Amino acid sequence: MREFILLALKAKTSLFNVNNLPEEGRMDLVCRTVSNALFISNDVRRDTIIHVVMTGPKYPPKIVSFYGKDLKGINPDEKSIAENINLALEKGKNLKLNEETNLKNGIVVSKKSFEQLVREKSNNQIVYLHKKGEDIRKIKFKDDVVFVLGDYIGMPKKTESLLERFGAKKSNLSPVMLFASHCIIIVHNELDRR
Amino acid sequence: MREFILLALKAKTSLFNVNNLPEEGRMDLVCRTVSNALFISNDVRRDTIIHVVMTGPKYPPKIVSFYGKDLKGINPDEKSIAENINLALEKGKNLKLNEETNLKNGIVVSKKSFEQLVREKSNNQIVYLHKKGEDIRKIKFKDDVVFVLGDYIGMPKKTESLLERFGAKKSNLSPVMLFASHCIIIVHNELDRR
Repeated sequence: MREFILLALKAKTSLFNVNNLPEEGRMDLVCRTVSNALFISNDVRRDTIIHVVMTGPKYPPKIVSFYGKDLKGINPDEKSIAENINLALEKGKNLKLNEETNLKNGIVVSKKSFEQLVREKSNNQIVYLHKKGEDIRKIKFKDDVVFVLGDYIGMPKKTESLLERFGAKKSNLSPVMLFASHCIIIVHNELDRR
Repeated sequence: MREFILLALKAKTSLFNVNNLPEEGRMDLVCRTVSNALFISNDVRRDTIIHVVMTGPKYPPKIVSFYGKDLKGINPDEKSIAENINLALEKGKNLKLNEETNLKNGIVVSKKSFEQLVREKSNNQIVYLHKKGEDIRKIKFKDDVVFVLGDYIGMPKKTESLLERFGAKKSNLSPVMLFASHCIIIVHNELDRR
């Protein structure tokens, strides 16, 4: 199983305009990252999950999780994914802390913090994508691996310490600063080739 | 210089609805491919050009070319790129065969065939991304290289013969069938690492 956690610090947690994603907490970046995690040509990566941890206004924190094995009725374009995130935010509006709601199309929305999610995954191999990590081509991967990605703002120091405490290993993909959506393609490619 | 040629067989060559890209000859795929060719986190790849060869209705063929070195006023989201393609199609509406118009923001639109474009590039190293090619990690690249990508429909047999005639070398990126937008990320990553 391949699992991705994207920390999207400014991503909206209340309904947003799907026709103006860049102005809505850079939801365009979020949507492209989800698209690249799950979709390949004519298929869905059934072995992949992506959790988007959203901490922007108005109802943070929210996690929208996409499960490849159950995904249906969603297309790889930014707007289709944005519409589905909006649906999830609407359904999850009144959730209490650590409660979740299943939308039955492969999407689950929960009111949960990044820290809590990482804690739940701490028995897995956790890889934190970071410029100063070991080259991904040299890392030994287990069957189940969780990749943690920051968004365009970067990861807060406190969050980095948390990841370290949970044993996350840093890995580097490129000499160039890439978008999270790009990083996911490179990770998939490396795992596909093994 | 890194140059990409995307053959987008169904891509609209007349104005289209930027809020419904999947229904407009899969312009969402085209836009994501352009985005991944040119944008990185907080920067533009100034050493990169992408030509989108569009052969869908109503005024084919059209080539919209994005020059990283001159690019301005464009964002990496699908809609921003779509709006700029629309502008280019509008400006290029009355072009005669092999004429072009420069939009002065890094975009040039021309009425030109795929064959003619490839012919103009035939003194360069041409790499055709294809499942049955040599592993990209083993290919020796020159400083200037042109990558040719098909879209979700695949490349017509006649076009493949043309590429062969111009000495294009086939290269494979992945055991999985990827979108053109994904292929570009992997190509950039391989070149970035060299």
